[in-house]
Amino acid sequence: MKSRTEYITFNTPTRRAFVNITPKIGKIVAESGIKEGICLVNAMHISASVFINDDESGLHKDFETWLEKLAPYSPESYLHNRTGEDNADAHLKRQVMGREVVVAVTGGSLDFGPWEQIFYGEFDGRRPKRVLVKVIGE
Amino acid sequence: MKSRTEYITFNTPTRRAFVNITPKIGKIVAESGIKEGICLVNAMHISASVFINDDESGLHKDFETWLEKLAPYSPESYLHNRTGEDNADAHLKRQVMGREVVVAVTGGSLDFGPWEQIFYGEFDGRRPKRVLVKVIGE
Amino acid sequence: MKSRTEYITFNTPTRRAFVNITPKIGKIVAESGIKEGICLVNAMHISASVFINDDESGLHKDFETWLEKLAPYSPESYLHNRTGEDNADAHLKRQVMGREVVVAVTGGSLDFGPWEQIFYGEFDGRRPKRVLVKVIGE
Repeated sequence: MKSRTEYITFNTPTRRAFVNITPKIGKIVAESGIKEGICLVNAMHISASVFINDDESGLHKDFETWLEKLAPYSPESYLHNRTGEDNADAHLKRQVMGREVVVAVTGGSLDFGPWEQIFYGEFDGRRPKRVLVKVIGE
Repeated sequence: MKSRTEYITFNTPTRRAFVNITPKIGKIVAESGIKEGICLVNAMHISASVFINDDESGLHKDFETWLEKLAPYSPESYLHNRTGEDNADAHLKRQVMGREVVVAVTGGSLDFGPWEQIFYGEFDGRRPKRVLVKVIGE
Repeated sequence: MKSRTEYITFNTPTRRAFVNITPKIGKIVAESGIKEGICLVNAMHISASVFINDDESGLHKDFETWLEKLAPYSPESYLHNRTGEDNADAHLKRQVMGREVVVAVTGGSLDFGPWEQIFYGEFDGRRPKRVLVKVIGE
């Protein structure tokens, strides 16, 4: 079994952002030399997500509006924010969008449907945060 | 390390549906000859889900009612639908239910608790859509 | 490829609970002797979750309040409860929080960001329920 591990750092200029990281992940898979296996991609921070959905800017705005409705920023509403933080909503939003994706590697590439793209979802940005990529297989 | 990759096509007659795919996945695991490893099952379309829960028809209706409350169909409410689609809600519902499951393979079978069953969750059906199954291990 | 499979039983004294299981999982990874690979941790029951987030008690209370708002206990509101159960809400809450996590194993340890901790999330406790841990790699 072969494996390859990489870390990618993001520092988004805005508090919230969705970044298409598919090309970066595809490059790591290609460089790994692994033909058959799986690729794990996860946020290493608990106020961020990695998820797979559509690369369509209207949908991304819909996601932001929807997440704000499900888990509003509203800093005074959360007990977590009594620790001096104001990011409790980011911890909740990340649960809806998920921490990680596991993608099949087939014939040396990410084995994707027609519209699948991998996104880094930032809910408390403006500081460096990391994503882990681990490819295992043969 | 051995691996096996299969694709299953669904074409549900209704817009929304939950289909128990456990027997199909169990068969692929058995045919793979893999005794110890993991099995990845993911929707290849971004308006569908693969998830694990109970095979109880009342609960499935509860899921549908609940998802409609969290992310209503309401086509005029979403920016994504200005692209000519009417399925923005399906992209949101799929985030709640998840894209994929990773299941342990132990002793040559899916290593499940007493009630775990794998479902394909369709939120924008009436056309062919695929699920990927990848088993890796030894 | 090596693998190790373990089952951990929980019997929480309260209906709902979040239990930090990171030390237990770290020990299983160390005992597996696997240096590079992945670790799957999943609830084997469909009214419980395994998720990764912050070990902060205020945030855990925020999670509970938030989940109760998204999917209220309200037993008479769900069709599933006509089967004699009163735990339909637990099946819904578990979808928001997730069934499983997949964690990279690097250099023989869980490859975690600064605040990542693994939790067992119980939504219908007061009886024995299991978590599966499977480590694969080399």
